[in-house]
Amino acid sequence: MKIDALLFDVFGTLVDWRGGIAASVVEAFAGKAADLDAARFARAWRAAYDPAMAPIRAGRRSFVPLDELHRENLERVLTANGLSAQLSAEEKTTLNRAWERLPPWPDVRPGLSLLKDGFILAPCSNGSIALMIRLARHAGLDWDCILGAEIAQDYKPSPAVYRSACAALRLPPERVMMVAAHNGDLAAAQAVGLRTGFFPRPSEHGPGQTTDLGPEGAWDIVADDLPGLAAALLDLA
Amino acid sequence: MKIDALLFDVFGTLVDWRGGIAASVVEAFAGKAADLDAARFARAWRAAYDPAMAPIRAGRRSFVPLDELHRENLERVLTANGLSAQLSAEEKTTLNRAWERLPPWPDVRPGLSLLKDGFILAPCSNGSIALMIRLARHAGLDWDCILGAEIAQDYKPSPAVYRSACAALRLPPERVMMVAAHNGDLAAAQAVGLRTGFFPRPSEHGPGQTTDLGPEGAWDIVADDLPGLAAALLDLA
Repeated sequence: MKIDALLFDVFGTLVDWRGGIAASVVEAFAGKAADLDAARFARAWRAAYDPAMAPIRAGRRSFVPLDELHRENLERVLTANGLSAQLSAEEKTTLNRAWERLPPWPDVRPGLSLLKDGFILAPCSNGSIALMIRLARHAGLDWDCILGAEIAQDYKPSPAVYRSACAALRLPPERVMMVAAHNGDLAAAQAVGLRTGFFPRPSEHGPGQTTDLGPEGAWDIVADDLPGLAAALLDLA
Repeated sequence: MKIDALLFDVFGTLVDWRGGIAASVVEAFAGKAADLDAARFARAWRAAYDPAMAPIRAGRRSFVPLDELHRENLERVLTANGLSAQLSAEEKTTLNRAWERLPPWPDVRPGLSLLKDGFILAPCSNGSIALMIRLARHAGLDWDCILGAEIAQDYKPSPAVYRSACAALRLPPERVMMVAAHNGDLAAAQAVGLRTGFFPRPSEHGPGQTTDLGPEGAWDIVADDLPGLAAALLDLA
């Protein structure tokens, strides 16, 4: 196994969307009369994500960047909770940019530093280029380039997303490893020939998480966290 | 004028393609019986660049990354000089990657450092994502993302390339500045609403250069070099 580039899932794997979004929701409603559970709101917003991508993956809707799907879903979750009238259009725009200000898990920056010299590093996320740029600045993620959904004009786990990332790198898939805390992402990457690296994020979804607690496939590397994955990769090199 | 992101032309503006290619040509033919003028070879290879992009800009050929156009042009220049048989296929592949190992002009790294905190920085080059990644590592260019021809699936100066870069940043063109040592590049960017920054590279083409020695349009900023442009931009902010 000879790996030249690492592609990273971002939401959940590198950054804590649940904690970050909940904090921004609290901030957005500060001083307003809303009675709301910010963590529940964050989960509801995130839960709308996959159904919103489905028509695009199926070719029934043209590709739009994730920022726009997030904005549509925000309106939906606000309305479902009777909260839409409490935020101005500008406040909604600001809240929608919460996805650009998510905190990294504490092992991420040290883990990426270990890998920087040895590998090309890029996100392969469903987030847009603009979102990934701003999130990288906020969270201190030092990328070589931004790959993922917008380059492919399709959403993971469509095979086109992994294939377009390898094509942009001009590398065969077996020289590229997809790194994620989500078994489904790795299964889709492996199906088109990429190498796979897994570590769990057992608190991504909050207390009582039941999914993605361990590896569920024959992944090339399984570790406890990103520095653990880095150590295993550097041992191989 | 409020600028959020700077897009950079790369070949000629940030890196010395003539000197870099000539050095790689010398290296490729070391120990071979070839009688060749490496600087002339570099200019001939570069001269084949624009005609090779023309059919793609005109829609008569599907987009292919610049690496492939460079490889076709290399074969053409080798053949025209009776040199094709002197290099193996592997040696030609190595020589073609000379574009990933071009030296930056000496003011580039200090200039980009001045700009890093205040602006999103990205190349908007005709080079492929793969080429730009590897060149950035070689030349020490610290980008937020890689924009340009491959994202647009078209070549500068087609308006689609500048427009797609702004779209990927989710910024209106007036918040984005194109920076180049080439008046034609800036004219095309200005025509679709981008801001423009110019400084000359009077030795890009070698002694006796007659083009792009000074500004030939109403560019927003004109400077002597990249740190000069950075100072002017930081004064505005």
